[in-house]
Amino acid sequence: MKAGVIGATGYAGAELVRLLSGHSGVDGLILSSVSFEGGRIEEVYPNFIGLISAPLVKAEAVISEADVVFSALPHGVGEQFAKICVEKGKPFIDMSADFRFGEDEAAFKKWYGKDYVHPELRVYSIYGLPELNRKKIKGSRSGVQGSGVIIGNPGCYPTGASLGCFPVLAKGLAAGTVIVDAASGISGGGREPSRQFHYPECADSIAPYKIGAHRHTPEIARNFAAMAAVEGRLSPPVVFTPHLVPMNRGILSTIYIPLAEKAEENNEQQISKFHSLYADFYKNEPFVRVLPPGVIAATNRVRGSNYCDISIHTDHSGSVLIVVSAIDNMVKGAAGQAIQNMNLIFGYDEKTALESIPALF
Amino acid sequence: MKAGVIGATGYAGAELVRLLSGHSGVDGLILSSVSFEGGRIEEVYPNFIGLISAPLVKAEAVISEADVVFSALPHGVGEQFAKICVEKGKPFIDMSADFRFGEDEAAFKKWYGKDYVHPELRVYSIYGLPELNRKKIKGSRSGVQGSGVIIGNPGCYPTGASLGCFPVLAKGLAAGTVIVDAASGISGGGREPSRQFHYPECADSIAPYKIGAHRHTPEIARNFAAMAAVEGRLSPPVVFTPHLVPMNRGILSTIYIPLAEKAEENNEQQISKFHSLYADFYKNEPFVRVLPPGVIAATNRVRGSNYCDISIHTDHSGSVLIVVSAIDNMVKGAAGQAIQNMNLIFGYDEKTALESIPALF
Amino acid sequence: MKAGVIGATGYAGAELVRLLSGHSGVDGLILSSVSFEGGRIEEVYPNFIGLISAPLVKAEAVISEADVVFSALPHGVGEQFAKICVEKGKPFIDMSADFRFGEDEAAFKKWYGKDYVHPELRVYSIYGLPELNRKKIKGSRSGVQGSGVIIGNPGCYPTGASLGCFPVLAKGLAAGTVIVDAASGISGGGREPSRQFHYPECADSIAPYKIGAHRHTPEIARNFAAMAAVEGRLSPPVVFTPHLVPMNRGILSTIYIPLAEKAEENNEQQISKFHSLYADFYKNEPFVRVLPPGVIAATNRVRGSNYCDISIHTDHSGSVLIVVSAIDNMVKGAAGQAIQNMNLIFGYDEKTALESIPALF
Amino acid sequence: MKAGVIGATGYAGAELVRLLSGHSGVDGLILSSVSFEGGRIEEVYPNFIGLISAPLVKAEAVISEADVVFSALPHGVGEQFAKICVEKGKPFIDMSADFRFGEDEAAFKKWYGKDYVHPELRVYSIYGLPELNRKKIKGSRSGVQGSGVIIGNPGCYPTGASLGCFPVLAKGLAAGTVIVDAASGISGGGREPSRQFHYPECADSIAPYKIGAHRHTPEIARNFAAMAAVEGRLSPPVVFTPHLVPMNRGILSTIYIPLAEKAEENNEQQISKFHSLYADFYKNEPFVRVLPPGVIAATNRVRGSNYCDISIHTDHSGSVLIVVSAIDNMVKGAAGQAIQNMNLIFGYDEKTALESIPALF
Repeated sequence: MKAGVIGATGYAGAELVRLLSGHSGVDGLILSSVSFEGGRIEEVYPNFIGLISAPLVKAEAVISEADVVFSALPHGVGEQFAKICVEKGKPFIDMSADFRFGEDEAAFKKWYGKDYVHPELRVYSIYGLPELNRKKIKGSRSGVQGSGVIIGNPGCYPTGASLGCFPVLAKGLAAGTVIVDAASGISGGGREPSRQFHYPECADSIAPYKIGAHRHTPEIARNFAAMAAVEGRLSPPVVFTPHLVPMNRGILSTIYIPLAEKAEENNEQQISKFHSLYADFYKNEPFVRVLPPGVIAATNRVRGSNYCDISIHTDHSGSVLIVVSAIDNMVKGAAGQAIQNMNLIFGYDEKTALESIPALF
Repeated sequence: MKAGVIGATGYAGAELVRLLSGHSGVDGLILSSVSFEGGRIEEVYPNFIGLISAPLVKAEAVISEADVVFSALPHGVGEQFAKICVEKGKPFIDMSADFRFGEDEAAFKKWYGKDYVHPELRVYSIYGLPELNRKKIKGSRSGVQGSGVIIGNPGCYPTGASLGCFPVLAKGLAAGTVIVDAASGISGGGREPSRQFHYPECADSIAPYKIGAHRHTPEIARNFAAMAAVEGRLSPPVVFTPHLVPMNRGILSTIYIPLAEKAEENNEQQISKFHSLYADFYKNEPFVRVLPPGVIAATNRVRGSNYCDISIHTDHSGSVLIVVSAIDNMVKGAAGQAIQNMNLIFGYDEKTALESIPALF
Repeated sequence: MKAGVIGATGYAGAELVRLLSGHSGVDGLILSSVSFEGGRIEEVYPNFIGLISAPLVKAEAVISEADVVFSALPHGVGEQFAKICVEKGKPFIDMSADFRFGEDEAAFKKWYGKDYVHPELRVYSIYGLPELNRKKIKGSRSGVQGSGVIIGNPGCYPTGASLGCFPVLAKGLAAGTVIVDAASGISGGGREPSRQFHYPECADSIAPYKIGAHRHTPEIARNFAAMAAVEGRLSPPVVFTPHLVPMNRGILSTIYIPLAEKAEENNEQQISKFHSLYADFYKNEPFVRVLPPGVIAATNRVRGSNYCDISIHTDHSGSVLIVVSAIDNMVKGAAGQAIQNMNLIFGYDEKTALESIPALF
Repeated sequence: MKAGVIGATGYAGAELVRLLSGHSGVDGLILSSVSFEGGRIEEVYPNFIGLISAPLVKAEAVISEADVVFSALPHGVGEQFAKICVEKGKPFIDMSADFRFGEDEAAFKKWYGKDYVHPELRVYSIYGLPELNRKKIKGSRSGVQGSGVIIGNPGCYPTGASLGCFPVLAKGLAAGTVIVDAASGISGGGREPSRQFHYPECADSIAPYKIGAHRHTPEIARNFAAMAAVEGRLSPPVVFTPHLVPMNRGILSTIYIPLAEKAEENNEQQISKFHSLYADFYKNEPFVRVLPPGVIAATNRVRGSNYCDISIHTDHSGSVLIVVSAIDNMVKGAAGQAIQNMNLIFGYDEKTALESIPALF
């Protein structure tokens, strides 16, 4: 089959290109770029020279030739292409936020400041977090009434935060506000140069940003609610603070979950209990690694891979569960998860093209 | 006067040497080092060549010749030198944890695994956080009955965490567990090479460490309690998680303080209210900068300086106050604060040798 | 077949383990480690958890069970294992310098300060730079008289320097001393912590080291001579200076080659002429990419891959050819090249397990 | 006196502001910025909050109020302000290349692609490298016939390269083409965001740029010629290659100087001889540190200071002298050197405001 990428020259697009090149089911890539139309992907990314070679065409040509279309466009500009794909019966996997909120246009509008262009498309869309919606995604190639399915591929922070909390939320063990303190590598800011991501401004330093106001907040809250609802529960409030860290890739989430009552057992026993809960919850997940007690999740242990590492801890008093999750923001946080969705849609082994073993550095 | 540094070749010791060289009241440095005894400081730190030149002698020689003694030794090995200083009537400013807990030997023993060597010395010691204990420190050159005073110079994390919370604690505004999520540059691990701080192991990555078990936890809790007690209040529980970040210097603390009730006003008004509280609380503090609303504290804005920057935020619901504090772990978090204490003890202007203006990079 | 790695827990060893795990011809890994014997590889490298799992046994067990033995031991300690492999008829691919100098024990002794332990083994050894010795390596599984072949896998700097100069040397175009100014990422220093590679000592800084005295100097000179000799020429003198750069991986070589006479043509024409020479020379090489004029080799474009990128330039006067080569020191500079050698020895496609496409970051 | 900075919000301008704030002879700063006119310096650089406070006015107002004017504008736009200063008799210290080439407009035009706007101004200008032109600069406050003097402040690379070669050039010891292989921190690229200096594009990587074409090449060659001419000699050709290194500050130059004949003495003696030459040549220079044999110049040993560190080496054959120089590109390479020039012009101690002792990190 042929895979298409609209917006192939941004960082997420280029990562898709790189990973799709190794996909055993894909024998052709059709790529578009507004900024570099008429050029070639290997001119924009000389690291691909001799290995990947493709012209950069118009988005329309991508849709026309590809059997599956990935969109790595900014929020609010890709719905037109989703519409065509739905009509043509081609799956559209969207990396923007446009299809992450489904019917809840109000949430999208509140945080992204835009209306849906084609609200009627949401009936065809699924939120693409496999650990939440695998059943819906699997085999959804032909969506509602033979249309193409639309996947709202999750945000990077929501992926790490959600996977770090799902088992606790499913069991209703959070006794109060959950705090997600997260940190991202600079590639999360995209390819476009700006003051914030200019090397001398962000190297050798750490700072939070968009405190209390980051757009991933409602997506995290919605995911929490969705998982809690599986068992008929309500989810706790969530506070989310992102930080910028001088590293290329990776998202670390340090998550504080207040527990209903202080453990009677000692810390080790308490950790062991929660570790079992997590290990059991994720036992069939191909990309979630619940680390053995004593090992702490770190971004350099998932570098370049689609894995989400999770480690379980408590504060010294045993009243707060501390969960640490680590993902590669470009892979499980973006392009890798998109391919995972494609694999599910088309019936490939879920790990196809995603078997890269992380190197420590 | 002459200043002495015991353990001058560790990172904190060398930073003391560098800063003391610019102190207008100091006309001689006497330095010791166990590892490099017989050598010279400029051989160990070639960055000092031509600018600072001093032999590395025995600790006893430092005490004998200096008018004030700084100790940058590991925990548990400097009490013998403190004892001599007390007897000789010379101030002893200790960068280890040995004198941070005062009479509370149990807390020290629980977290540091050691007994006090000379418990009787604690009557001469003051916890050296000027923003908490300035009155006690000021003019304490001749301590109890003419003895030398001992200063337990604060830990790096406790300095950032305490300054970030003091105004709220003094007013009793925290309605529940305070979470201190902090991150440190690698210099915080000291000069001794180890796997954890080996470049390829920690570059381009972030991870927490010693979750629920870091030794600075009880010092933070004690400081919180001390400030709350000023107004006769109890302090809330505290959870502290340190992270290691690929940068040389700096400590960032992102602090989550639950508020008693959700604000009626909007977020901007709420932030403004807390900003006023902080600005007022610290209005006479020479080294605390409460940043204007809209500016977020970042470690690269205090680099190489003794300043603690604080910025005030809330989560989007207005139920959690989020305070961010940034210090340079080597300066306000160690050597600079030690000199600030020396200035207070000897009656120098508190800012002497500490007027460096931070460069952005 | 089964592949064995002696010294599997060092950085080069672990990279071998990671890459061999993806080798279609390898269905088992036998690993040894002196430091961690009795443990497991995934305990030492938690990034492998769930993906690679193997006990760490004795070197003897590796040799006994494996069909090919890689040795990632320090210089001077692996000859005993090479001897057994030769006797058992098993290929021994050695990452140390022990077998890089063949019969020239004097050069080894002068620069490494050691005698050969088993000088008689050199008759079985080949210097493993495929671009120089492919014919000898290919199909050498059964070495001299049925013995196991020994491969002296090249040093990281010599690989980048040699590939950058071979075409010019073969044509005898260097008119004087060639200067190789090179820079390495910190992983080149290995896994053992030391002051030089301690994060705060090497981050945010650059410096040369071992100027005029680095052990890779004679290996570079020998390779230069070997290539020049192919056409019956003498090679020019070489000056080599390595630098340490704050990055994890990669070696960049900026090579200055004086030309016999100043070009009559303009710079662009001159560059084009040399570009053709290089492109032609390497046209059948699977891992050398001669970049199009205008593109400059950079280490982040070969990250994690076995490629050597080469770009061609001249100084503004046209009297000095400037060649830039970039490799990943852990892959083409160590583990990847070792696997390339294994592929040649056993008749696998030369690119097996080495098809990773470099990501920009 | 009052000091003015035109273009105060770029990196060089802000560094000037920071350093001038500590100048004992300066009691007021007048700052301009085209981009931020009407704002304040501490809004653009929050690291200055509470420490430096000044409005950003028009360039004309700077010239009108200041007693000395620093210009940190791009090439080709500051001559108009230089003209006014000359007329008003105020020294104009220019950080751009406009006045580095004096009467040689052809060189400027060839490499910078621009004509001089006011060629007649060159008679008032001096190239501001104190180690070359101290006598001319000293006391030049009132320039030719009472006009204001213009200082063409040197480029960053030319400063490091020139200081590294001057003693050899003065003695005529270079026997052929000198190769300057240099590396700069990213701040050298200025404050304006661009792809090249975008964090994910340049972190964890090294590459050369503008090979054979960097604008600092003719400035280096001119300086070489000027120093050689002092003793009536001709200077050798020079090849200059800059690299970009993932660090904030610093320029390292590794310089290869072919020697007329191979030394008869051993390397140690040879190095010692050249070391004496350098130490003697620079014995009265306040900011050049010739390091003791065995210590290698590194950028982290001059960080934040105005020092140029120089170390002396040879290749193993003794036929090439290898000199390494390290400066902070923002200080000795820009703002610090500008202040050094101001100190000379006005008769201040040359080290005023430049006494900062480098910290290792």
